[in-house]
Amino acid sequence: MRIQLINPNTCKGMTDKIALCAEHIALPTTRITACSPLHGPETIECARDEVLASSGLLEVIRECEQEESKPDGYIVACFGDPALDAVKELTKAPVIGIAQAAFHTASLVANRFAVVTTLARTIPTAEHLLQRYSLAERCCAIRAIELPVMALEQTDHATFKQLLAACQQTLQHDGAEAIVLGCAGMSDLVSDLQSELGVPVIDGVTAAVSMVESLHRLSLSTSKISTYAPPPTKPFTGRYQHWSNTAGKED
Amino acid sequence: MRIQLINPNTCKGMTDKIALCAEHIALPTTRITACSPLHGPETIECARDEVLASSGLLEVIRECEQEESKPDGYIVACFGDPALDAVKELTKAPVIGIAQAAFHTASLVANRFAVVTTLARTIPTAEHLLQRYSLAERCCAIRAIELPVMALEQTDHATFKQLLAACQQTLQHDGAEAIVLGCAGMSDLVSDLQSELGVPVIDGVTAAVSMVESLHRLSLSTSKISTYAPPPTKPFTGRYQHWSNTAGKED
Amino acid sequence: MRIQLINPNTCKGMTDKIALCAEHIALPTTRITACSPLHGPETIECARDEVLASSGLLEVIRECEQEESKPDGYIVACFGDPALDAVKELTKAPVIGIAQAAFHTASLVANRFAVVTTLARTIPTAEHLLQRYSLAERCCAIRAIELPVMALEQTDHATFKQLLAACQQTLQHDGAEAIVLGCAGMSDLVSDLQSELGVPVIDGVTAAVSMVESLHRLSLSTSKISTYAPPPTKPFTGRYQHWSNTAGKED
Amino acid sequence: MRIQLINPNTCKGMTDKIALCAEHIALPTTRITACSPLHGPETIECARDEVLASSGLLEVIRECEQEESKPDGYIVACFGDPALDAVKELTKAPVIGIAQAAFHTASLVANRFAVVTTLARTIPTAEHLLQRYSLAERCCAIRAIELPVMALEQTDHATFKQLLAACQQTLQHDGAEAIVLGCAGMSDLVSDLQSELGVPVIDGVTAAVSMVESLHRLSLSTSKISTYAPPPTKPFTGRYQHWSNTAGKED
Amino acid sequence: MRIQLINPNTCKGMTDKIALCAEHIALPTTRITACSPLHGPETIECARDEVLASSGLLEVIRECEQEESKPDGYIVACFGDPALDAVKELTKAPVIGIAQAAFHTASLVANRFAVVTTLARTIPTAEHLLQRYSLAERCCAIRAIELPVMALEQTDHATFKQLLAACQQTLQHDGAEAIVLGCAGMSDLVSDLQSELGVPVIDGVTAAVSMVESLHRLSLSTSKISTYAPPPTKPFTGRYQHWSNTAGKED
Amino acid sequence: MRIQLINPNTCKGMTDKIALCAEHIALPTTRITACSPLHGPETIECARDEVLASSGLLEVIRECEQEESKPDGYIVACFGDPALDAVKELTKAPVIGIAQAAFHTASLVANRFAVVTTLARTIPTAEHLLQRYSLAERCCAIRAIELPVMALEQTDHATFKQLLAACQQTLQHDGAEAIVLGCAGMSDLVSDLQSELGVPVIDGVTAAVSMVESLHRLSLSTSKISTYAPPPTKPFTGRYQHWSNTAGKED
Repeated sequence: MRIQLINPNTCKGMTDKIALCAEHIALPTTRITACSPLHGPETIECARDEVLASSGLLEVIRECEQEESKPDGYIVACFGDPALDAVKELTKAPVIGIAQAAFHTASLVANRFAVVTTLARTIPTAEHLLQRYSLAERCCAIRAIELPVMALEQTDHATFKQLLAACQQTLQHDGAEAIVLGCAGMSDLVSDLQSELGVPVIDGVTAAVSMVESLHRLSLSTSKISTYAPPPTKPFTGRYQHWSNTAGKED
Repeated sequence: MRIQLINPNTCKGMTDKIALCAEHIALPTTRITACSPLHGPETIECARDEVLASSGLLEVIRECEQEESKPDGYIVACFGDPALDAVKELTKAPVIGIAQAAFHTASLVANRFAVVTTLARTIPTAEHLLQRYSLAERCCAIRAIELPVMALEQTDHATFKQLLAACQQTLQHDGAEAIVLGCAGMSDLVSDLQSELGVPVIDGVTAAVSMVESLHRLSLSTSKISTYAPPPTKPFTGRYQHWSNTAGKED
Repeated sequence: MRIQLINPNTCKGMTDKIALCAEHIALPTTRITACSPLHGPETIECARDEVLASSGLLEVIRECEQEESKPDGYIVACFGDPALDAVKELTKAPVIGIAQAAFHTASLVANRFAVVTTLARTIPTAEHLLQRYSLAERCCAIRAIELPVMALEQTDHATFKQLLAACQQTLQHDGAEAIVLGCAGMSDLVSDLQSELGVPVIDGVTAAVSMVESLHRLSLSTSKISTYAPPPTKPFTGRYQHWSNTAGKED
Repeated sequence: MRIQLINPNTCKGMTDKIALCAEHIALPTTRITACSPLHGPETIECARDEVLASSGLLEVIRECEQEESKPDGYIVACFGDPALDAVKELTKAPVIGIAQAAFHTASLVANRFAVVTTLARTIPTAEHLLQRYSLAERCCAIRAIELPVMALEQTDHATFKQLLAACQQTLQHDGAEAIVLGCAGMSDLVSDLQSELGVPVIDGVTAAVSMVESLHRLSLSTSKISTYAPPPTKPFTGRYQHWSNTAGKED
Repeated sequence: MRIQLINPNTCKGMTDKIALCAEHIALPTTRITACSPLHGPETIECARDEVLASSGLLEVIRECEQEESKPDGYIVACFGDPALDAVKELTKAPVIGIAQAAFHTASLVANRFAVVTTLARTIPTAEHLLQRYSLAERCCAIRAIELPVMALEQTDHATFKQLLAACQQTLQHDGAEAIVLGCAGMSDLVSDLQSELGVPVIDGVTAAVSMVESLHRLSLSTSKISTYAPPPTKPFTGRYQHWSNTAGKED
Repeated sequence: MRIQLINPNTCKGMTDKIALCAEHIALPTTRITACSPLHGPETIECARDEVLASSGLLEVIRECEQEESKPDGYIVACFGDPALDAVKELTKAPVIGIAQAAFHTASLVANRFAVVTTLARTIPTAEHLLQRYSLAERCCAIRAIELPVMALEQTDHATFKQLLAACQQTLQHDGAEAIVLGCAGMSDLVSDLQSELGVPVIDGVTAAVSMVESLHRLSLSTSKISTYAPPPTKPFTGRYQHWSNTAGKED
């Protein structure tokens, strides 16, 4: 099968890193194709970034769906799971967001998990996603290390130590039994952290790969009868005019 | 004061209708300026539409904030409250979404309220907003009349009867004590519906106007210390490149 | 319009202070008439006080409703929102409690707010109101400064400092982004606190004034079809005998 | 031990009926003394009634607490549990409301229970109590037979049939496994209903008697360290002036 | 009446201690018969112990139900309330678990209670029970003293001090107003703790005794129409083969 | 890898059927070994059955863990997820219950799912599991077809039609967008049902297989630091005496 991995951040370094992690975990029969949108912010760290990344993300999906051999599944590889509902409307293939993947996976290996993320201002986003997926009760804490996403591009020893310290604090003080890493840019650190901590450390990217593979193998995909039905065809103006021609559900 | 009313749908007829309703209720000292984005879908009826409307909506806010005499408050006039968090990041002025306005106002005049909306596929969106604003318990039902948004542009007697019937059903069967109209395009029907039904009928547009006026008078605006702090300055690519120059919070 | 502001505490100094705050914020077309009950406790600081204040409060409403030109709206100006449901039964005009007003207003300007109140023993009351209005999730903390209500009558610099310190603590430790003042007697301090803190500080009295004005302007009032229907006429004994003659809903 | 049973309704017939049911179930070592307030509504059917009954109820407690041999426990015998928190403040003896007693008892004998009550307008009151006691999830339905409380004074065969039918409907359609009777005036019907229905039928009055007896025997009473601490001494005006002299917690 | 008290731990010393506490509180007309299973762990401190204790517990119930004069009520005297639903299926008599008894009783005497338990690893079990009984909101904290259950067999002064300290901490820091003791082995300490602390201290064993007595007197027992209906007759293999002959509900 | 699949029902036909379904979906590199306990009920249809099946289930785990080449993962293949927490304590390998697997998988492909199960009396069990996993909000309905588990052993056309009808009803009336099959005995029908219904139909057995494989590949397993730590070594009596020798965590 082919999984299209989309990094909604336009930062190429991060896309490459994520792709590598995904390929590393993928089954031999899986082909990972990774990309980021042409249009949008270098990194996603606030609601504005998420909005401006989302429309570029939909353009990617639109183009993939017009390819002759479409992807068999999609991964949205930003921890805010931006535009996830919209992506589900645009394709019949299974779609997974990395926060969704991480929260569900953590729930399978721990009674309570904690999220360790980049900036404190993204904490409400994580809280809203936990509420959306109805897994809020399983998460006992969200801690931020107050490093911007770009700082994870060159993760030196100091960054690793900072991340490790936040994980240790949440295990000791919050009752966490597993750690969810709250940024796709942390994917390369998961193995070292798990060795140091001795508890499950979950990275959304690799968790999402195995989930899409599983759904594909189980012949399961997003239900199209209601919430995620194909969108109606309608006129668009300005820079989205080309969406007017997108085949959808006739009125 | 000046309230900038933004209809995220690009359909001009709806913008005009909403503006009229807003002006009708506004205080004499309030000036309503209404517009819709240059880029985006004619109407918003699904998650794809919401995503593609949102970036156009942010462009409007960006331009308003660069004006010499900025608006004193903003209203996002689509019942999905698209991009509300992002708008709050981009301005110091108070910002209200019409679903938010309607849910809070209904909570003041009824123990339980119902929402009557257009298409059934938008029900999960309303449910998620109720959950986000934590008012889900106050809403006893969401009923859809299964008419597309555009059908509200020429509301004839048949449309009115259909809407009225849905309201009556929810009062009789769901224990509703007030009705929230789930689409900005229904704003002109609120008074007739209230007369017929004898219970409060809440339209988000007019409710939002009085809320922004109130916040302004109370010298209250969105807290900027955490969730809605100004976004960091960063590089954007492609059609959002001009956002790179937007002054924000320095890293 | 005329708003009847009722301070359920019989302490006249507080009534005068509240009335002044209300008049200061009211629209030019609004007339505030303020009073407190003839019967009841000087201040409301526990459930006993609330019960004994409530029947005096209803007497006030009963008399107002028998006036030739009734009030166009009511405000119950004690942070426990005593007897709010009963007041709503007795009038067709909109009714707002100041805790209700403050919680809803805070929800519009912050993701999470905190309440700073007088005595710790009133914290459960605030918690129950938050649960009743279903806004508990939006409130991240309730802190008490352990000063009795009467101490707020002569707010010297020490009281202000104490209040300020509690606000600063909740901003730093509880993740609060806005402050709700948990006592009508704090109404005169809101502006100074907001200047010092740099985040929205919400006083229920002024918030309630603008809410009643808004509901009036929107032609919205309490739904009378179920929970808040006029009470049935029935016999009363003893000191409440005069209520037997109150016109209500015939059986 | 002596249990003071207070019927907050001033209707003497109901007090007598309740007292009889209470005496019937009480242990040989328990003495039931029953009364109703001097001041207040004949029956409690809405929030206004509850407020006006509550201050008369507190007068009863105040007098009991000044007796030389105080009661060893109190029961508030109206299904709205009026003024329960205030009563708990005024005495060191255990205090039970009949709705509280019924909900907790039903939770011990059924996975899900239903409430069958008098008027539909009292349903929100029951819902709020369930929420307050945090037992809302255990209650699957509240059904009203739309008979005023006074109609239960002369329960003929027709009333019984109506009540029985409502119980049967909730067992068949709502998944209820036990029935809570939502009015003290139904206490005499519990045994016949249980025989007919074959499921537990819970009356709050008798449940409350055994609860107060149990707490007494277990040497347990309301915690007085915080929420229910004795109220502070303070001035009262008008018809509540005598409360100024009530010994309380010194400031 | 006869109450069968079953200590699911096979430790005889604990059974004797619990029986003594139960007899001490029981009415003169109540006969306590106490036992523990023949098969199972000495103490219950984890999920494995609970599972292996549960089948032995069911054997006890099975034998009791085959006696000529069956018990009139059952108490499962381990704070994890093991196999409670299964026990309810096997008898028409009322059944109470001691955690259930303690949580409900604490809710009657305090706004918020805390649980003080043995090992930290049992905290999730207590949390799940609170969630099951839907009383989680009433519990403000669960603290563990990190002593194994067997250490409570010879409670010296040091153990008492340790327990007392944990109680004092929860009263001071967690807002608890009453204490629930989280292990049947603490039953003999309840009176001394209550004297020292000055707040209600609840032991599930004695609370359960008075609850079963109350249900018996109120002619109430587990509803048998759905969740707790008698189990169907069916084949069992191996060491449970004798259960094949247990009369149940015919298919 | 080797996955040990345990059918806690002792009915061999069901074990064979489940094993076949599991093998069909497993990766080529996965070896499925299936068994059922020596001791226990033929089928699990009530709480008694679950208790008596659970200790036999633990014996299986105990033996597997003593094998030289232990399983790399376990599946508990009964929809009540019996003894799941205890199993997690006894092994370092990942453990999945089929209800858990089905609920999480359904949450990935639908906004709301429904469960279609065998007997109505098992509905509370499913509700409690949904609450435990905190996914209750995602499930909009649980419908029972009122067929005993054994009837699924020879699924003829009539059984299929009955199941199909229940699925169709929940799609039409409950707002379900996907179906979870509530019994391991339905595993062979999933593909036909999905073809007929056109929405995702989730079988817990196959979902569990892919989950255990994914966890294994991700190097993730149950966190052993708290809730699921190895149990302490302690004496067991009677038929569980051999558990005394099981190596555990030393005290």
